[in-house]
Amino acid sequence: MAAYEPKNPGYRAAAIAMFDGQPAMHTLGIVIVRLAPGEAELAMLHSPALTQQNGFVHAGIITAGLDNACGVAAFTLMPREADILTVEFKTTLLAPARGERFVFKAEVVKPGRTLTFCEARAFAEHEGKVTLIAAMTGTLMAMLPRVAASQAPAPIPA
Amino acid sequence: MAAYEPKNPGYRAAAIAMFDGQPAMHTLGIVIVRLAPGEAELAMLHSPALTQQNGFVHAGIITAGLDNACGVAAFTLMPREADILTVEFKTTLLAPARGERFVFKAEVVKPGRTLTFCEARAFAEHEGKVTLIAAMTGTLMAMLPRVAASQAPAPIPA
Amino acid sequence: MAAYEPKNPGYRAAAIAMFDGQPAMHTLGIVIVRLAPGEAELAMLHSPALTQQNGFVHAGIITAGLDNACGVAAFTLMPREADILTVEFKTTLLAPARGERFVFKAEVVKPGRTLTFCEARAFAEHEGKVTLIAAMTGTLMAMLPRVAASQAPAPIPA
Amino acid sequence: MAAYEPKNPGYRAAAIAMFDGQPAMHTLGIVIVRLAPGEAELAMLHSPALTQQNGFVHAGIITAGLDNACGVAAFTLMPREADILTVEFKTTLLAPARGERFVFKAEVVKPGRTLTFCEARAFAEHEGKVTLIAAMTGTLMAMLPRVAASQAPAPIPA
Repeated sequence: MAAYEPKNPGYRAAAIAMFDGQPAMHTLGIVIVRLAPGEAELAMLHSPALTQQNGFVHAGIITAGLDNACGVAAFTLMPREADILTVEFKTTLLAPARGERFVFKAEVVKPGRTLTFCEARAFAEHEGKVTLIAAMTGTLMAMLPRVAASQAPAPIPA
Repeated sequence: MAAYEPKNPGYRAAAIAMFDGQPAMHTLGIVIVRLAPGEAELAMLHSPALTQQNGFVHAGIITAGLDNACGVAAFTLMPREADILTVEFKTTLLAPARGERFVFKAEVVKPGRTLTFCEARAFAEHEGKVTLIAAMTGTLMAMLPRVAASQAPAPIPA
Repeated sequence: MAAYEPKNPGYRAAAIAMFDGQPAMHTLGIVIVRLAPGEAELAMLHSPALTQQNGFVHAGIITAGLDNACGVAAFTLMPREADILTVEFKTTLLAPARGERFVFKAEVVKPGRTLTFCEARAFAEHEGKVTLIAAMTGTLMAMLPRVAASQAPAPIPA
Repeated sequence: MAAYEPKNPGYRAAAIAMFDGQPAMHTLGIVIVRLAPGEAELAMLHSPALTQQNGFVHAGIITAGLDNACGVAAFTLMPREADILTVEFKTTLLAPARGERFVFKAEVVKPGRTLTFCEARAFAEHEGKVTLIAAMTGTLMAMLPRVAASQAPAPIPA
C-alpha cells in the first residue's frame, strides 16, 4: 500500500480525540489498537449483550466497528480543521461473528480533498484461530469549517 | 407494493421470537412497532450512550436498526423452519441522526427461496419533525435445516 | 415523492445535452423517454450484441442504464454551471434481463449541494409483461467550476 | 491471498468458454488476459464509442469489465456443472477512466457453496502510467442443475 503523508502532524492525537469523543465506542467496548497515516485497527471483546439470536455478535455492531475503523483511517489524512462524516458503506458478512475478540482493520485506498475511499475487514479470534468475518468499503467526507454550512446536506424539500 | 402471502401462518409470533432472541436489540433499546407480511417497522429512543463525537446517534447503531428491520421483514416471508442471515447491506447516511426517537422501516422488494432483497429507511423524529436520515438496501438469506450445513459459508482455505 | 424545484430553469435542455454528449449511450441504444425535476426514465431495445452467456442482457449494460438514469435525474437539480460525476453505486440483480425492451427509472431521494443520493430500478418488458430486474442506489457529485480543480480526486501517492 | 484448489480440473477451459459465450464482451472489446484459481484479469482497449460526455470511458462499461472479472474469478472455483449469476455489486469510481487501455483484476475473497464474495479493481493505462480508477465488491451465486429451478428467483407477486 502507498505510504501516505499526513497533512496534520498531530494526526495521532486528533484521531484519538475524535474516537474518544464517541460514547457509542465506549458503550460497545471498542478501542484503538493501532494507528498509522491512512490506517487504523480497532478491537472489541465479545459481549453477550451485543449478540443476535444465534449467539454471534450482531452484524450492526460489527458494522459499527468497521465504520469507525474507516473513519479513523480517513481522519488521519485530513487537515487539522476538518470534521468527518460517513457518506455510505457496504458491509458483506462472510462468516458468523463467533469469538472472544474482534479486530477491525481499515485502510485508505484513495484519499481526496472532499471524499476518501476506504476498505476494512473484520476478523474474529476464536480459540486461537483468526477468521475473516466481514468486509466493508466506504466513502467518507471531510467537512471543512469555511464550507461546512454550505456543504451540509440540504434539507429535503417538503 | 405487492401484498405478500406468508408461507408461515405463524409468521408474527416467529418474527417476534426471532427478534426477542437478540440481546443486541435489548441493549440498543430497539423494539418492533409494526409487522406485516414483507414489512417491519422498528423504533428506538435516543440514548447518549449510542452517540458519536457530535452528539448524533452513531451510523453503526442506525445500521443495526436498519439491518434488523430488513431481517424481520424478510423473515415474515420465510418458511417456518428457516433461519435467516444477512449476506450484505449498503447504508447511505443522508442527514445527522439527531432526534428524540428513530424509526426503521423495511420492506421486501423481491422475495426468493434462497435470497431476499429488502429496502429500508431510517427516520429521526426531532421536535415534531420527521427527517429521512439513512437508506439501506440489503440481501438476506434463508437457511433451511436440511441444507444448513452445506449452505454454510465454507471455511477460507489456509 | 417530493416535488423538487430545479435551480436551472433550462434543466431539460441541459440534461438532454449532457446525455446526448455520451457516445456510450448511442452505442448501447439507450434514450431518454421522460424527464422531470429529480426524475429520469431511459429505455433501451434488446440487442443480441449486449447479452451474456444465457442470452440475457449483461448486468454491466443494465448498470450503465441505471447509472445514467441516476445521473440525469440528479443533473436536473444541479445549478447550470455544474458538471456531474458518479461517486459510487450498488446494483442488485433481481431477475434475468429477458425482454424486448428495458426501462430505467431513477429518482433523487436526497439532493445536496455537493452530493446527491438517487434510487433507480430497471424493468424488462417481455411479451406484454413488465418485470423488475434490477435496483440501484447511487451517490452523484456536483463539480462546480470554481472548485473543480481542488475537488478533483487527488492522485494516489506513489 | 489464499491458494484455492479448483473443484473443476477443467476450470480454465470452462471459464474461457463461459466468457466467450458472452456477446457483450465481444461488443465491448473485453478479453481475458490472465486466469488462475479464484483470480481473473481482463483488459479492454479504449474506444470512443464507449465514452461519456467528458471523453472518459462510461462508468457502466467499467462496471461491465469489473463484474465480468468477478464472475470469471468466482467461476474458476465452482463445480463443473454450475452456472453462475451475479447477485449484487457495488462500484466506487475513484478517478476518470482516461487511458489507452483498461485492466480489470478480480479475486475471490471468500468462496462458498452457494455464494462467493469477490473484490475487483480497474486500472487505466495512460501514457505509461497506471492509475486505479474503480473498485468493486460483489456477490456471485452458483446455480447447480438439480436445484436450478427451485433456486431461481421467485416471480414477484402481482
